[in-house]
Amino acid sequence: MLNRYFDQLDTGEKWFSGGRTITESDIVMFAALSGDWYPLHTNKEWASATAFKQRIAHGMLLLSVATGLMEFKPGIVIAFYGMDKVRFVSPVFIGDTISLEMEVIDKNDKDGKGGVVTVKVTIFNQRNETAVSAAFKFLLAKSC
Amino acid sequence: MLNRYFDQLDTGEKWFSGGRTITESDIVMFAALSGDWYPLHTNKEWASATAFKQRIAHGMLLLSVATGLMEFKPGIVIAFYGMDKVRFVSPVFIGDTISLEMEVIDKNDKDGKGGVVTVKVTIFNQRNETAVSAAFKFLLAKSC
Amino acid sequence: MLNRYFDQLDTGEKWFSGGRTITESDIVMFAALSGDWYPLHTNKEWASATAFKQRIAHGMLLLSVATGLMEFKPGIVIAFYGMDKVRFVSPVFIGDTISLEMEVIDKNDKDGKGGVVTVKVTIFNQRNETAVSAAFKFLLAKSC
Amino acid sequence: MLNRYFDQLDTGEKWFSGGRTITESDIVMFAALSGDWYPLHTNKEWASATAFKQRIAHGMLLLSVATGLMEFKPGIVIAFYGMDKVRFVSPVFIGDTISLEMEVIDKNDKDGKGGVVTVKVTIFNQRNETAVSAAFKFLLAKSC
Amino acid sequence: MLNRYFDQLDTGEKWFSGGRTITESDIVMFAALSGDWYPLHTNKEWASATAFKQRIAHGMLLLSVATGLMEFKPGIVIAFYGMDKVRFVSPVFIGDTISLEMEVIDKNDKDGKGGVVTVKVTIFNQRNETAVSAAFKFLLAKSC
Amino acid sequence: MLNRYFDQLDTGEKWFSGGRTITESDIVMFAALSGDWYPLHTNKEWASATAFKQRIAHGMLLLSVATGLMEFKPGIVIAFYGMDKVRFVSPVFIGDTISLEMEVIDKNDKDGKGGVVTVKVTIFNQRNETAVSAAFKFLLAKSC
Repeated sequence: MLNRYFDQLDTGEKWFSGGRTITESDIVMFAALSGDWYPLHTNKEWASATAFKQRIAHGMLLLSVATGLMEFKPGIVIAFYGMDKVRFVSPVFIGDTISLEMEVIDKNDKDGKGGVVTVKVTIFNQRNETAVSAAFKFLLAKSC
Repeated sequence: MLNRYFDQLDTGEKWFSGGRTITESDIVMFAALSGDWYPLHTNKEWASATAFKQRIAHGMLLLSVATGLMEFKPGIVIAFYGMDKVRFVSPVFIGDTISLEMEVIDKNDKDGKGGVVTVKVTIFNQRNETAVSAAFKFLLAKSC
Repeated sequence: MLNRYFDQLDTGEKWFSGGRTITESDIVMFAALSGDWYPLHTNKEWASATAFKQRIAHGMLLLSVATGLMEFKPGIVIAFYGMDKVRFVSPVFIGDTISLEMEVIDKNDKDGKGGVVTVKVTIFNQRNETAVSAAFKFLLAKSC
Repeated sequence: MLNRYFDQLDTGEKWFSGGRTITESDIVMFAALSGDWYPLHTNKEWASATAFKQRIAHGMLLLSVATGLMEFKPGIVIAFYGMDKVRFVSPVFIGDTISLEMEVIDKNDKDGKGGVVTVKVTIFNQRNETAVSAAFKFLLAKSC
Repeated sequence: MLNRYFDQLDTGEKWFSGGRTITESDIVMFAALSGDWYPLHTNKEWASATAFKQRIAHGMLLLSVATGLMEFKPGIVIAFYGMDKVRFVSPVFIGDTISLEMEVIDKNDKDGKGGVVTVKVTIFNQRNETAVSAAFKFLLAKSC
Repeated sequence: MLNRYFDQLDTGEKWFSGGRTITESDIVMFAALSGDWYPLHTNKEWASATAFKQRIAHGMLLLSVATGLMEFKPGIVIAFYGMDKVRFVSPVFIGDTISLEMEVIDKNDKDGKGGVVTVKVTIFNQRNETAVSAAFKFLLAKSC
């Protein structure tokens, strides 16, 4: 989806990404890089006493992996503006595989400067349960 | 700030985090872990031809590092609900040092289940320029 | 190139990848992951006394990054068979940016099982100097 | 083997390396560093639908780990020239342990500049099954 | 404990840290970063033939993680002087969760320059078995 | 040195390791893996206001890298017992290259079980300044 120009995308259009398994290694590396060692992500004993009964992936890890699955096309995506209504809906456990549904929900022409598309991003697991939902805003170039 | 219970926090209260320098190494590791190798972050030649003239940090890296700077207290933060109005305002370059201002902007009592606080998070650099602003929502436990 | 089926590729066809800057961080992480801490890659003092006068990237790191730049399409690339005539022609230094030229140089139909394409891969730097050349062999699916 | 000079090695000579277990963590880190997230390596669901029924290690990861197991001696190995006939013969799964057999198969004296040795490298798993075979070419110094 | 000034700490005082699960990923990453690929840590086959019957964490990894669990307060800890009587008492296996007990065992006033506290650090696992014991020496600032 | 049996080592014997440059990347990765983000290691602004005027390597990173430089020989080193008198003598900055001097200072025969050697380990930089000194204790096998 993010390999096409602003004028080539229609509201309502959908795209599905490939998937990636969230491993224990991803969670440890994300804890390390972010510095967020909250025990729900990194302490097996502590996590086993919660309602989840096990460690879960960081919400921000899921969003980060999502950006990797989006297949941004250089020259088309000019800027990643921001996100709205990010909601961490259900947990992703070690060994779950996530992928994305993206749907264009709004377009805002900026004239010469391209246009802003708002994309509803849904991160779901291998059982089609929604883990995260959010609206991403990108500034895209025009084709001509 | 996130080491105090729902009932111990007041709207308007502020907290400032420690800082962390965003190195080339952080950007490479984040590109690697997220899979987002967009050339603005990872290709010196390509980035030098943009308005930024150099590589910039991924917005999601900044948010990720922000969670590490927040000092979540286990037993107090029950859940990280989501984010609203995330805006990537200005770029962070290699060697910039970021830190956070957090301000409680809303409280929503959930009775027995604790309460949701909305915290305005501002990520700024060593020159006090805002890089990212966002509203984070946390479910916090009550002290009694 | 590797997003098209065996029957859709012609001998002589070329494709150019995006680029990636090889940072000090990439070299350290590759030394770490591979276990190859040869001082030409990891010891500034030792490397400064060689003909290169500085640290250089591991040849195998360049090949590894090359596979990441190739944009394999799931469902099309069935297997990566092997490589021939891999030659490390000139050094890549910290801060150089590499990209690939790929050219189909041979096709070998395997009937029902798809076909093997031999692709000449040239890794070059930002000054268009060849760093590595090699022939990669892939088993590709057919479109029908 | 690579701790002895050109003139101290004989054709036919063999050497066996120590071993290293290829973990899920190695595969994730290699996908991250190389940028090669092909789902056969990184998507449990996708891989389970292939003939392998599970994720397998990247061929280039195995070659990379091989260089770490080779125990290059600084001052003896002048350059790693290249590789020929690299063949990825059978898959390495998560938890398999690999090691190397190296055998000198050719020597080519370069007079004052040392000599090139061609070494057949066989990467095998804990059941002595060959995973990768290749011929590596090194320029070695002479002892006097 | 290390968030209080020299004059605010008493000999005999104790503090308990949070915990962190030592994963296979931590061991692989530590082997990578340190360069210590001793097979007891990184070769499943080799380790299974030892008295431990499995891979164990590097002692130095445990000490490193310990420093992360200590919650140093900037402005209070002036320097980490050294360690005495570090003893690797019993192994930590993949999946074990470690935490710390710290006890002030000595104080040495340095007048204007602050004071040195000696802290007995005990790293134990989820079954309260001691894995490592050591005496750490820190130079701490005074509160006034 | 640690490739020879207990009975083959003499008190007073010395060995010098190869060297490794401590990069910004090593410090960031160590902060990440250990969880020790003390600003003297990871915050350029904060560090510039200290007596060191810049970021310094973690002492525990230096000890960790030291174990990688020691070249333990499997089958000879039975156990790494512990350390005494570890002193962080002077700082290692980004870009410094460290190596080791090891000297056997004590031997303690354990009869059938091998013997404990105490090795004075000195980590020094490229200007031959001592950064860390320590006494390491290893249990070594006997040759017969």
